[in-house]
Amino acid sequence: MTFIEKLSAAWSANNSLLCVGLDPDSGKFPPHLQKQTDGIAQFCKAIIDATADLACAYKPQIAYFAAQRAEEQLEEICAYLREKYPHIPIVLDAKRGDIGATAEQYAREAFERYGADAVTVNPYMGYDSVAPYLEWTDRGAIVLCRTSNAGGSDLQFLNVDGRPLYQHVAQLVADKWNRNGQCALVVGATFPSELAQVRALVGDMPLLVPGIGAQGGDIEATVKAGKTANGSGMMINSSRAILYAKGEVGEDFTKAARRVALETRDAINRYRI
Amino acid sequence: MTFIEKLSAAWSANNSLLCVGLDPDSGKFPPHLQKQTDGIAQFCKAIIDATADLACAYKPQIAYFAAQRAEEQLEEICAYLREKYPHIPIVLDAKRGDIGATAEQYAREAFERYGADAVTVNPYMGYDSVAPYLEWTDRGAIVLCRTSNAGGSDLQFLNVDGRPLYQHVAQLVADKWNRNGQCALVVGATFPSELAQVRALVGDMPLLVPGIGAQGGDIEATVKAGKTANGSGMMINSSRAILYAKGEVGEDFTKAARRVALETRDAINRYRI
Repeated sequence: MTFIEKLSAAWSANNSLLCVGLDPDSGKFPPHLQKQTDGIAQFCKAIIDATADLACAYKPQIAYFAAQRAEEQLEEICAYLREKYPHIPIVLDAKRGDIGATAEQYAREAFERYGADAVTVNPYMGYDSVAPYLEWTDRGAIVLCRTSNAGGSDLQFLNVDGRPLYQHVAQLVADKWNRNGQCALVVGATFPSELAQVRALVGDMPLLVPGIGAQGGDIEATVKAGKTANGSGMMINSSRAILYAKGEVGEDFTKAARRVALETRDAINRYRI
Repeated sequence: MTFIEKLSAAWSANNSLLCVGLDPDSGKFPPHLQKQTDGIAQFCKAIIDATADLACAYKPQIAYFAAQRAEEQLEEICAYLREKYPHIPIVLDAKRGDIGATAEQYAREAFERYGADAVTVNPYMGYDSVAPYLEWTDRGAIVLCRTSNAGGSDLQFLNVDGRPLYQHVAQLVADKWNRNGQCALVVGATFPSELAQVRALVGDMPLLVPGIGAQGGDIEATVKAGKTANGSGMMINSSRAILYAKGEVGEDFTKAARRVALETRDAINRYRI
């Protein structure tokens, strides 16, 4: 089963476009987990168990693991996902971008070591920096296109022959890089009109959409702008808003996370039809 | 001492613009090191000891370590460099690029965990994806500008208001991002005329120049195009040609590596004046 097939099946099985981002910051954990040597793995597994019927994908952000010397805990979390929830794809958010020989190493890291179904990659170094990921024909490469951060427009909005750079990237990926249907694009939720322009350029290609929740994107506008004809086509990511949900009185962190995940999934579903 | 000061001192102390890239691929090691559990650290330390009077910087490529589950060996190599050769800067080649909160984690990885003096970063996500590295005021951020791989031109050569994207990146970094003199640029050796154009745009900003050696760039053209008025301003990288130098009869791998490093340093020096 390819990444795209697995993602499509998860959209249906959980009736969800919600991608849960795993950005574990130990300082924000409940106190009892801050002291554990495998606190990151415990925290993420608890979040996963609380949301596994609500998510279409999990997206661990590798920077958090790398900063905390926690690669082995990331391995453990990915192994847990593959074993217990094999129908939900793992997107390793690593935004890799390097020459071919080095990209081969990064592909091994993402797909062999962590067993990810897809990895985020940066387009700046061009096709041969993305091709090594596509050699893994059952996996996906999710290419940065239009990002939701303030500085995103510094380069992505530069005028290339009459239209912004990010649209060239979308076109390039759709027309040339996506030979085997393995590509997707990262397009932020903070600019729904741009999301709609990308959707118009790339057909049914899946879009990974950060910027909901802590980053403040509007769910209705995002879903309407980015969905495909059949009301799917997106992994709408929320990380911090779910992981560090403000609990009600007497509610533990997994219950709070589940409540926010459920609300977010349902808010998204309201605008899919 | 800042990254730039440390680099300038190393240029002088070793009379060298040669940066030795550490891309350890266990399969290419001498047989006795392939079997060791810390073979990567042993290999890199031996290369370092054989070349430490010839290099202006060491550049470990983190992908090789990540693919081989060898982050602890990378920590060990960086600690060894900082202790035994504290005057030679460590450039962590990681090409990171992510939103601010995530970039903060990557900065901790590079500067706190590995103790690197500088890290390579990708400009596609804009200034706020680079700013967190610059918060570490004694460290450097080396921004991808024009890369030496075949696909480098896919984006970098797109026409932005009459000139290629990579020149906009060079200008942007020189004019806006490089507030505290902490920035440098990656510009490949395979296009000497483009190297000269970047040099003309960025004054004395250091350039990290891959593409010598295994990638085939011409040393004379590279040095003439990229040097500053005082004959420095570059870290000219060679990785595979040094690490996996073809030994003469009876020569061990460290002697072969030293011979190639010496030849390369001297070939570079011939064109600096």
